[in-house]
Amino acid sequence: MTITSTMTDDRVAAQEEFRNELVDARILVRTSVDGLYQRSATFESIVRGIERLVGIAGNGGYEPLLFFPPVLPREEFIRSDYLRSFPDLTGSIDTFVGNDRDHVNLLRALENGEDWTRFLAPAEVMLCSAACHPLYASLTGTLPEGGRRVELQGFCFRHEPSVDPARMQMFRQHEFVAVGTPGECIAHRDKWLDTALSLLRGLGLPVRKVVANDPFFGRAGRILAANQRDTALKFEIVCPITSTESPTAIASGNYHLDHFGGPFNILASDGHIAHSACIGFGLERITLALLKTHGIDPRAWPDDVRSQLGQ
Amino acid sequence: MTITSTMTDDRVAAQEEFRNELVDARILVRTSVDGLYQRSATFESIVRGIERLVGIAGNGGYEPLLFFPPVLPREEFIRSDYLRSFPDLTGSIDTFVGNDRDHVNLLRALENGEDWTRFLAPAEVMLCSAACHPLYASLTGTLPEGGRRVELQGFCFRHEPSVDPARMQMFRQHEFVAVGTPGECIAHRDKWLDTALSLLRGLGLPVRKVVANDPFFGRAGRILAANQRDTALKFEIVCPITSTESPTAIASGNYHLDHFGGPFNILASDGHIAHSACIGFGLERITLALLKTHGIDPRAWPDDVRSQLGQ
Repeated sequence: MTITSTMTDDRVAAQEEFRNELVDARILVRTSVDGLYQRSATFESIVRGIERLVGIAGNGGYEPLLFFPPVLPREEFIRSDYLRSFPDLTGSIDTFVGNDRDHVNLLRALENGEDWTRFLAPAEVMLCSAACHPLYASLTGTLPEGGRRVELQGFCFRHEPSVDPARMQMFRQHEFVAVGTPGECIAHRDKWLDTALSLLRGLGLPVRKVVANDPFFGRAGRILAANQRDTALKFEIVCPITSTESPTAIASGNYHLDHFGGPFNILASDGHIAHSACIGFGLERITLALLKTHGIDPRAWPDDVRSQLGQ
Repeated sequence: MTITSTMTDDRVAAQEEFRNELVDARILVRTSVDGLYQRSATFESIVRGIERLVGIAGNGGYEPLLFFPPVLPREEFIRSDYLRSFPDLTGSIDTFVGNDRDHVNLLRALENGEDWTRFLAPAEVMLCSAACHPLYASLTGTLPEGGRRVELQGFCFRHEPSVDPARMQMFRQHEFVAVGTPGECIAHRDKWLDTALSLLRGLGLPVRKVVANDPFFGRAGRILAANQRDTALKFEIVCPITSTESPTAIASGNYHLDHFGGPFNILASDGHIAHSACIGFGLERITLALLKTHGIDPRAWPDDVRSQLGQ
């Protein structure tokens, strides 16, 4: 018990130390909310270098890159079934649809320190939780032979305030998604895990691949997590950022089975419900891994890393 | 009455026609929600060209560019007093903070078609309504002589579903903000309006500057809007996109008086409450204005426009 809490304290201290280093160097600017940062042009330039590099690794085998906005239709979010597994990470958006009198009451509640949000109503959009969620509704129907291969990028919201700079509430994933038969999906995921490992090692990052699980919520979630690990559906590429013992996932390869194909009525060309798989690059986390590994000043990074990232 | 509704019908038809043209050319991908689009790499490349061009126009007179995330601390949003004037555009974020039993109840409500969002609670963040809102909390205190000059970019959410592709629910503003004395702020806004006019004309856009007002909510809002126009606090740079009679604002220059300096306790170096002003470039709208003016295929744009945008 003592050992565990000392380890935890050490880990939090290391997270705070790296966060301070990033803030002192003006790489990130803190806000009053943990996990929410303003990005410097330096940070953003690294993000874009990674975006370009992974795009090249896609090697022309994908439909043209799409940038998704940070919100998606509420109905699509619900169909993704995210609420069943990760309700605590969700961001639901409310807005005001009342009249002048409702507005007066809202402002009065606000002034009195009461809950003014009760005057709001759910909007037809929610925050994206994973970059590829907004993709699947566009694939409803029967896929062509060989399935579809899509490259996309988007902002994700996860409500998990943390002092760890690598655990942001708002971050971007750059993904390559395959939708088709199980075999096509597994091949896609496994090929990309190899590609990602060599790409990230080529940037000097001490990465390795591990079997992983998503942070499923609650008691039932523990069973789902164990099952996900047992069936090796999810792999992460991890890299030490604020801890060597608990390295951070900076990319992940996920085989979804028919989790999206089912609810979004996507059929493979053979008529079976389509499966899907994605590789997701965490653009903020890879940037932080680079800053940790090569130092807080990108101008002093190895030439070869700088040139790959267009720095 | 007949004339007005015919005009309105024509305008909506023109908006739908341009939207269809953008979608057919795969510049934008529609979602099931009006005003919410996935951006192509082509679209995004133009956005980044504009970002670079306005950055150069800043001519080194600004603190290094910051990229803001799409959400900001709830407390800062409230202090901005946006709820008083634009409650209908607001995006408040809820998340789930309950236990296993609450989760079961949430899922049951969802399955029964009931309002499951009643199991959520307000998160400590909200969606940004204007790119510069998250800036002011960082300026609390006394400013240096001459004030501060900040360049920033961020996603904004406005709940105003529309068939007009130029009225997106999620879009980016690239801003240059001055905070200091009234004279400094007015000079900043007016200088930038001239700079923006010549920059946008240099891209071949048929723009002009007009006095404008924000879309204040409700009955009281009509008075606020009239007052804003009478005191010429807001100017817009407008350009025909889907209508020549009602051109679209693609940039705006706003003098806020002490609207932010007061609540965020920002003092000018002379000890008075600081005033602020900003010029905001609507990155999506400028992109759309270019696509409308020069044609849907950027490869066929005038060489001089292409080269300025790095295309």
